[in-house]
Amino acid sequence: MYEQVKASFDRQGLMHTLNAKMTDIREGEVKVTCEFSPAVTQQDGFFHGGVLTSILDSACGHAAWTMIPEGKEVLTAELKVNFLKPAKAGRIIAVGKVLHAGRTLVVCEGEVFDETGEKLLAKMTTTMIVVARAV
Amino acid sequence: MYEQVKASFDRQGLMHTLNAKMTDIREGEVKVTCEFSPAVTQQDGFFHGGVLTSILDSACGHAAWTMIPEGKEVLTAELKVNFLKPAKAGRIIAVGKVLHAGRTLVVCEGEVFDETGEKLLAKMTTTMIVVARAV
Amino acid sequence: MYEQVKASFDRQGLMHTLNAKMTDIREGEVKVTCEFSPAVTQQDGFFHGGVLTSILDSACGHAAWTMIPEGKEVLTAELKVNFLKPAKAGRIIAVGKVLHAGRTLVVCEGEVFDETGEKLLAKMTTTMIVVARAV
Amino acid sequence: MYEQVKASFDRQGLMHTLNAKMTDIREGEVKVTCEFSPAVTQQDGFFHGGVLTSILDSACGHAAWTMIPEGKEVLTAELKVNFLKPAKAGRIIAVGKVLHAGRTLVVCEGEVFDETGEKLLAKMTTTMIVVARAV
Repeated sequence: MYEQVKASFDRQGLMHTLNAKMTDIREGEVKVTCEFSPAVTQQDGFFHGGVLTSILDSACGHAAWTMIPEGKEVLTAELKVNFLKPAKAGRIIAVGKVLHAGRTLVVCEGEVFDETGEKLLAKMTTTMIVVARAV
Repeated sequence: MYEQVKASFDRQGLMHTLNAKMTDIREGEVKVTCEFSPAVTQQDGFFHGGVLTSILDSACGHAAWTMIPEGKEVLTAELKVNFLKPAKAGRIIAVGKVLHAGRTLVVCEGEVFDETGEKLLAKMTTTMIVVARAV
Repeated sequence: MYEQVKASFDRQGLMHTLNAKMTDIREGEVKVTCEFSPAVTQQDGFFHGGVLTSILDSACGHAAWTMIPEGKEVLTAELKVNFLKPAKAGRIIAVGKVLHAGRTLVVCEGEVFDETGEKLLAKMTTTMIVVARAV
Repeated sequence: MYEQVKASFDRQGLMHTLNAKMTDIREGEVKVTCEFSPAVTQQDGFFHGGVLTSILDSACGHAAWTMIPEGKEVLTAELKVNFLKPAKAGRIIAVGKVLHAGRTLVVCEGEVFDETGEKLLAKMTTTMIVVARAV
């Protein structure tokens, strides 16, 4: 199931660059993880906010994709992230969930947790637009 | 001038990973560019929104840094991006500018242009928090 | 308990203008309701997005206020709202909750429901800044 | 010109409640002003952030409306505001401008100034969705 969603994730060059993995996919919810390395840091050696945003965006976008008609895909119209706590080691886990799936727009929210799954590091809300599939 | 700001950019492992360069720095404004490659794509071969966000965040954060006291640095409290047009080739240019520099918070806005500098691809607003320097 | 938080809500002239009520207050969570009337509409007779935002802002701000030290208050640094469904009758209920309470910034999220409490109409995330009390 | 846009503004009950006026309308840009009164305040006697957001939303929405086909209107999908400075007297001026007008989504940005037009009080970015006119 969800073969096209998985294939889309695999086509995202950035996810390979960040060594991010889609670790769970179900209707309206996707998880994406990323391991700490010097390649994903900001100036103080923490995970860069752009990395948290990237895996949140991918988790939310693919969560949206599980709820749209065949032959369609979603693109990110906008996203907003609040960064709550820094992290500088281990694996972070982004969980993207569909909040409301309309015909044209799908609104999702996403959270990043540390590897215990207990500490909330960041929170996203985002609007995805449903379009005809390009690929 | 701005040696500490440049040094901060150089310490951001993610900017090296994305092959992003800080190409201009002046009071309250910083430019960061990124070349297209398969390493920065989303599922349809366009620049991934996470890449636009990452270079916007870095441009805005370092623009903020040009306007804060010695011994301080900034961290991103939140950011929001609207994606206006896709891009799948060439170099993109993120311009980060300080909109309002307070003692505790610095609010910036950023824009990503295509390499002609004419086509607006994305728009960010972001809140930076001023903290004691970690490094 | 929470007398200063209730007093702050009562000082908000806009809440009186919108005929909004603070109906619940506990640590880290506040509810604010608003009755439909022609005074709160947009062009098609639905609740105006500005009204949903206003009661969400007040609910989140006062939720933050329940978790800060004596002698302090909070001001809204930024807010973001996604509007999911329209509503044109009855009472709407904004629930504001603290997501992360730092020393300087408090991040909250808020949701607006229809009067059944089942239908989610809007979702907010917001950053509050803790300042010395003005009043 | 723009009779339908003006008529839409006049149908917004909330604008009457806030005593807000549309003072300028041209292609892709609308101004809305609001006079200070105790009816529009937060707890310290400043303009409530919900009021700034409401007139920004109306200014941006009607700016978008100047650029869409006959028979359509716009609804606000999401908005984000950063509050930069407080204001507690006089008239505030919201200027809404279209940043990118697509077929389905129109992205706008808005700014609130004090009555001199010089001091920037708040900045919004927002996404409007183009729909068939309800009225």
